[in-house]
Amino acid sequence: MPDNSKTKLFDRIALIGIGLIGSSVARVIKRDKLVDHIAVTARSEKSLETAVRLGIADSITLEAAEAVKDADIVMICSPIGTYKEVMEKIAHVLRPGTILTDVGSVKSAVVRDLNFNLPEGVHLVPAHPVAGTEHSGPEAGFSELFEGRWCVITPSAATKQSAIDKVASFWRAAGSNVEFMDPDHHDQVMAMTSHLPHLIAYTIVGTAMDLEESLMDEVIKYSAGGFRDFTRIAASDPTMWRDVLLNNKNAVLEVLQRFNEDLTALQRAIRWDEGGTLLDLFAKTRAIRRGVIEARQEKLYD
Amino acid sequence: MPDNSKTKLFDRIALIGIGLIGSSVARVIKRDKLVDHIAVTARSEKSLETAVRLGIADSITLEAAEAVKDADIVMICSPIGTYKEVMEKIAHVLRPGTILTDVGSVKSAVVRDLNFNLPEGVHLVPAHPVAGTEHSGPEAGFSELFEGRWCVITPSAATKQSAIDKVASFWRAAGSNVEFMDPDHHDQVMAMTSHLPHLIAYTIVGTAMDLEESLMDEVIKYSAGGFRDFTRIAASDPTMWRDVLLNNKNAVLEVLQRFNEDLTALQRAIRWDEGGTLLDLFAKTRAIRRGVIEARQEKLYD
Repeated sequence: MPDNSKTKLFDRIALIGIGLIGSSVARVIKRDKLVDHIAVTARSEKSLETAVRLGIADSITLEAAEAVKDADIVMICSPIGTYKEVMEKIAHVLRPGTILTDVGSVKSAVVRDLNFNLPEGVHLVPAHPVAGTEHSGPEAGFSELFEGRWCVITPSAATKQSAIDKVASFWRAAGSNVEFMDPDHHDQVMAMTSHLPHLIAYTIVGTAMDLEESLMDEVIKYSAGGFRDFTRIAASDPTMWRDVLLNNKNAVLEVLQRFNEDLTALQRAIRWDEGGTLLDLFAKTRAIRRGVIEARQEKLYD
Repeated sequence: MPDNSKTKLFDRIALIGIGLIGSSVARVIKRDKLVDHIAVTARSEKSLETAVRLGIADSITLEAAEAVKDADIVMICSPIGTYKEVMEKIAHVLRPGTILTDVGSVKSAVVRDLNFNLPEGVHLVPAHPVAGTEHSGPEAGFSELFEGRWCVITPSAATKQSAIDKVASFWRAAGSNVEFMDPDHHDQVMAMTSHLPHLIAYTIVGTAMDLEESLMDEVIKYSAGGFRDFTRIAASDPTMWRDVLLNNKNAVLEVLQRFNEDLTALQRAIRWDEGGTLLDLFAKTRAIRRGVIEARQEKLYD
């Protein structure tokens, strides 16, 4: 059940990064008055100006440390490849009692980077809202992005419960269903459900782009036959996905290896006309669709 | 521009197979009164009874030859793996002047099978409506299935123009945009836009299904991260897709080989932290999305 209380949760939030996710978070906050003051920092002046124009930033600065100062919650919404650098910039102004959270799609490596010179008394509550679109930037955000979606929180055993509860309350207010998971387990699940599918989609679209130009035009023209779904996934933010794949390397390489073996077996079946092998797999995979539809309904009508 | 004339095109059509495509064709015919009599044949008595109940068959029979007798157009809507057998059953009742067409997703091998003992004077006009859903069977069909979609017709140089025109008129009446292509070229384009994406989707869903059960439940639960799009494609009709892959073997193996090389290069880039390689590809593939969206708009507003 979504938390509909929508009471104020924090006095001041620092959003580090104001892309699709960061700006959607800011929109939720403004809509439900969850935080009094949103301090936004980003590397691009243009993004900050856009945030002001959209009415989703109460103060802006190019200096991360300045945004973080006096915040009771800091949420990192920049690509995970920037986390180490972010910590170098903000660690010295994080005060005991502050909640430090993020929205990254990988959790093990992220926990490691966020723990890097983390001051005593700062509550680290890593989170991953499993939501997004193929668009990016502050104007791509919208306040409904997290509704009915999962948010996975991966605290350590030592994390203070009240800090975990507050982060969970935020995501429930945004309309998400909150789950808790071990960071390694999270990364394994996401390698299969999200990271491998993205890698495959990028690859297949890249393969198509290397075709001679005349064929390429037709590939676009007839993309509704299946290819189109891949182009949507392969239009996702390049920097974000580079960082995700490099920071979840072991889990991604593991499922990729399995995928490769399975694909090679099918390639062989096609070459040697082993129709039975193909039919067995295709009949099996059809069954999983029902599970996905049921799981989705559960989400929609929970 | 869609052809809105919707005048009667044929006296009697024989539909061989009444699944998703065949039953959608029958619905279009009934809606627009394009043919006086629909004779339906299929291998399953249940499908035939369903067709009668749905009001999309004027006569039914388990004997293909009986359905085809006296038809001025015969449309094969069964999996392409059945074509040879179908021709053995119907060739002796096909009379000169009859149009023989189909809806198969592969064209080169199909032309070969349909030419097998094709009587003199029968006009072979192979066609491929690039449309479908992940559902199958006579109840899955709907008359709007072909609207705004492409239908590729692959006649030979010797085919009578009036026969080609009549088949094209049928598909335009169904709302499709008709294109003409060489069968081999059609198969190359579809290998990339449709056959490889389906093979990859089946493979990745199969890989996920081999995970330990506890992880599998979570893969379904968190499928919105990308995996869900693949499960929809991998829920497509197993028999149809086995036949497609085996009958377009050369073109499929060719693009699959290219895909494999590209994926191996990315795997290596992930292993050796070559972020630049990933970023270059991901930025490049993003651009193609615009092409797909533009092509689709063109289709919608043509």
